Amino acid sequence: LKISFDDLKGLFKNKLVKYNFNNDNAEILSEIFTDNTFSGIESHGINRFPGFIQCVVNGSVKVDESPTKINSFGAFEKWNGNYGAGPLNALQMTDRGIEIAKQYGIGCIALQNSNHWMRPGYFGWYAADKGFILICWTNTIPNLPPWGAIEGTTGNNPLVIGIPKKGGNIVLDMAMSQYSYGTMLNFDRENKKLPFSGGFDSKGKLTDNAGEIINSQRPLPIGYWKGAGLSLTFDILAALLSGGRATKDLSESEGEMGPSQIFIVINPTLFSNESENDNLIKDILSYFKSAETIDEITKIYYPGEIAFNKKKRNIKEGIDLDDKILQKVEAL
Amino acid sequence: LKISFDDLKGLFKNKLVKYNFNNDNAEILSEIFTDNTFSGIESHGINRFPGFIQCVVNGSVKVDESPTKINSFGAFEKWNGNYGAGPLNALQMTDRGIEIAKQYGIGCIALQNSNHWMRPGYFGWYAADKGFILICWTNTIPNLPPWGAIEGTTGNNPLVIGIPKKGGNIVLDMAMSQYSYGTMLNFDRENKKLPFSGGFDSKGKLTDNAGEIINSQRPLPIGYWKGAGLSLTFDILAALLSGGRATKDLSESEGEMGPSQIFIVINPTLFSNESENDNLIKDILSYFKSAETIDEITKIYYPGEIAFNKKKRNIKEGIDLDDKILQKVEAL
Repeated sequence: LKISFDDLKGLFKNKLVKYNFNNDNAEILSEIFTDNTFSGIESHGINRFPGFIQCVVNGSVKVDESPTKINSFGAFEKWNGNYGAGPLNALQMTDRGIEIAKQYGIGCIALQNSNHWMRPGYFGWYAADKGFILICWTNTIPNLPPWGAIEGTTGNNPLVIGIPKKGGNIVLDMAMSQYSYGTMLNFDRENKKLPFSGGFDSKGKLTDNAGEIINSQRPLPIGYWKGAGLSLTFDILAALLSGGRATKDLSESEGEMGPSQIFIVINPTLFSNESENDNLIKDILSYFKSAETIDEITKIYYPGEIAFNKKKRNIKEGIDLDDKILQKVEAL
Repeated sequence: LKISFDDLKGLFKNKLVKYNFNNDNAEILSEIFTDNTFSGIESHGINRFPGFIQCVVNGSVKVDESPTKINSFGAFEKWNGNYGAGPLNALQMTDRGIEIAKQYGIGCIALQNSNHWMRPGYFGWYAADKGFILICWTNTIPNLPPWGAIEGTTGNNPLVIGIPKKGGNIVLDMAMSQYSYGTMLNFDRENKKLPFSGGFDSKGKLTDNAGEIINSQRPLPIGYWKGAGLSLTFDILAALLSGGRATKDLSESEGEMGPSQIFIVINPTLFSNESENDNLIKDILSYFKSAETIDEITKIYYPGEIAFNKKKRNIKEGIDLDDKILQKVEAL
């Protein structure tokens, strides 16, 4: 049984209103959860929705709060997320970043006391749809071991880079672990092997068994020591510039309450227009895709292309969802 | 036979003056090449010096040129590197970025028509020593295959993130390939195996043999598809914002002439002072390093720590250099 975008969004909205979000915020949040689901990122769409509502119920996500400005200097602003809903906070900061970039060419916002923003790629698409480049990242609970360690004392701190392009933006959305916990949970649930080794098992051997990695809590940083190092710098920058929590201060038991996030927005049409930019990007992509592939069936994709195609198809055809998770949402 | 920092710097400076750099620029460049060498990055220090001089001789690096501003809007500036020496151009842009960040909190410079900047970490150290955060990257010749491809149509586009810290800054300096070509050339020269698989051999199998990777031209992107995607976004942003060359326009035969580079500088002391920042960073590092390691001899390092320690030791004790490369420099 296929479900349409509007039906799923209606279901989410209904529940969000029931749990005390006002109509406007319920509208935005339901759009985000539905978009994430239809883009193929169920782990930060429908699969995460019950957990999100749980955070609302236990008070770690505050339905009536939204970000307030703490301080600003030129193109840099420091905001307090006041523990509002992560996706709403992030969207407001993206909008504010766009305003700063309109005024100064570039804008940077450091946000403290926010909440889990679900799929950060959404904000990359959002900014790019409005014609702006977005570079953003968050810190997370300690779920990634430093290189050489068996305990997580840094986060998988996802990074997003969104770039406007007609006919489908370029949006990179990547955690600093080879696979996000969301992805690994999906593979484990479906009892599938990961395409490549994604971490260490409890004996310290590289493995493609997602369940063993979830068990050992030793996901592989991208680029081994490089991803662990990049993750550390993202945590330091987010906590330092926002004055908020670092990974060391975030804990799973509190639902990852109060992460710090950075939003950098750049206006790409200061000295060239949209169609010039589009032509350049198309030339770069055409060259990128011209590389000979390992075999005849393998294709080269740019970041965001697969999610974009999946969303288009899902919107047209409706989406197949796991009955259990759908029932779980309906029962909320 | 150990050589001191000042002696090696004197040798470089002597040669740079001989090849028509003025005294000030020869002083700065010799400092950079010596620092890179003493920090353990010989591949972008002494080993690269003869190639750099060759670029001066063939005119791809122009000794008398320096960057000029093309355009500016608020905290964003577009500059032309005029094919000056890459390290000099990058240093000037870092200084200019610091000036912008002083005025606006954050500054962004997009530089076209520069040249190879050698070890980009140097500029991270430089900015951090002055109390500023630097995020910068460059595009490069097409030396990294997109995921699924056997031909390089994107670059290994190194990224630097420098963060000020008393007693040794945090400076991440990483190419988008698991190992830089410089590192692989060193392993190949010394006939050593890479610590981990660093790419594919000509049959498409992962290998730790640096020579086979240099042969196949198939280094492994960090995080597989993630690093290839990140590299593409860096290339697009650098070319788009600078109006300069993309990786597709850069070729090895011309000495990688005219890459595009991005410099983002942030002032970390707008709303907190140096000692507050230092305390926060020390707490984060202490937590990061508190993780249990895989065995008793393994240590956890933060980005830049190893290079910093190496440089300190080398400055104290002098450095052992390969006779052949030293003679090659002396013979220039």
